[in-house]
Amino acid sequence: MTEVRIIGIPGIPEIHEGDDLPSMIVTAARENNIAIEEGDVLVVTQKVVSKAEGRIVDLDDITPSPFAESYAREFEKDARQIEVVLRESKRIVRQQHGVMICETYHGFICANAGVDASNVEKTGTVCLLPVDPDASVRAIRDAVKAQLGVTTAVIMSDTFGRPWREGHVNFAIGLAGIAPVIDYSGQVDPAGYELRVTQMAVVDELAAAAELVHGKLARVPVAVVRGVEYAASEDASTSLLIRPAERDMFR
Amino acid sequence: MTEVRIIGIPGIPEIHEGDDLPSMIVTAARENNIAIEEGDVLVVTQKVVSKAEGRIVDLDDITPSPFAESYAREFEKDARQIEVVLRESKRIVRQQHGVMICETYHGFICANAGVDASNVEKTGTVCLLPVDPDASVRAIRDAVKAQLGVTTAVIMSDTFGRPWREGHVNFAIGLAGIAPVIDYSGQVDPAGYELRVTQMAVVDELAAAAELVHGKLARVPVAVVRGVEYAASEDASTSLLIRPAERDMFR
Repeated sequence: MTEVRIIGIPGIPEIHEGDDLPSMIVTAARENNIAIEEGDVLVVTQKVVSKAEGRIVDLDDITPSPFAESYAREFEKDARQIEVVLRESKRIVRQQHGVMICETYHGFICANAGVDASNVEKTGTVCLLPVDPDASVRAIRDAVKAQLGVTTAVIMSDTFGRPWREGHVNFAIGLAGIAPVIDYSGQVDPAGYELRVTQMAVVDELAAAAELVHGKLARVPVAVVRGVEYAASEDASTSLLIRPAERDMFR
Repeated sequence: MTEVRIIGIPGIPEIHEGDDLPSMIVTAARENNIAIEEGDVLVVTQKVVSKAEGRIVDLDDITPSPFAESYAREFEKDARQIEVVLRESKRIVRQQHGVMICETYHGFICANAGVDASNVEKTGTVCLLPVDPDASVRAIRDAVKAQLGVTTAVIMSDTFGRPWREGHVNFAIGLAGIAPVIDYSGQVDPAGYELRVTQMAVVDELAAAAELVHGKLARVPVAVVRGVEYAASEDASTSLLIRPAERDMFR
């Protein structure tokens, strides 16, 4: 029987800059009798990592540009928050209906460059993506290894909208210890047909699956996923998940 | 402790037109000692439903149009298969790099209108999406209710590429008994901030999660997902997942 378990780790307190997030994860797991095991995948939401890394901006410290001012006026937004979005962006992919789809300097294409005012402690502040999400989760993975002696994979998840489809899902924006894509190219299906283009983004599926226990209001920012077949990789990077512009039809 | 379990149902044989898929699912679950319980979500891959419904086309029966001929010649494809894709499409959204992104008559936007030559038994045939995926899974849900006396939700999943990101994930193309989106609008986060735009596409997350046990070569076309909070709905429809064109930035 194939079974995958997704176990939410409750009891992680509100995170502040400088907090030792890996130790807090290990402690919360222990207090809830959740053993983190060899090969488990930990899925950690972006928000708690950003908070631990101090990626919170006080809008009072931001002076918006004229471009941010005029856009904010037209769509009744906070010009300072728009300014932060622009500073996190390499390029604006679409700007319509009061929505900005941005390419971040990491290469992710997402609404508002990942800048978010929800689930921050203080009104008037916004949360940015970590500077180097792969490095962030690599540090968590290393700490779990050091403290518990088990080798895991760690994924950072964030909430994405999608073209054409309503609603959001969580996808991966950082990874350590796991190859992001399982490539079936050249393998044959049970009928002997060669699978030519099927590459499954297993880290995105893991991020989406873990959101089922994270919830938006539930304060369960970390989940353990057990039983998934994945390719362990010491040097995989999230950059492998980003489609090169020359092969992309929707830039 | 919050835990979600994804249990693959093995032992479902190759499916042919006219097969009683719901009974085969119930039987395979029983033979593997997997109890299907009240509130469980069954995730069934599109391919087995299409096969049971006879949605297989023999390419020898297809006469390609001149448009299909010229496109197939340019990109070294089978003109008959291109013709089938065109017949399943309402509109071509993009046609570049030898890839056709189509809007199906259901409203899904996906590569090749969901027409697929992999995992079909006979070379020279292709598999189409079910005509009415919601009706297909509603029939499965009703049969499970009749045979086991339990009320479930049922989702049909299919494999999607995404703009900007490499790799594929499974998303939902049919549903019964479950609202596709959880709407947090108007709810407040722990800091008192009102969540304005967050709607989570729980059925897409369930489809993605279930793919972790389906696999591409594993012949596990049905998974039971247990422990997920969702809004039961008797009249929800996949059409709620399709973003109206006037609010879409990538048509």
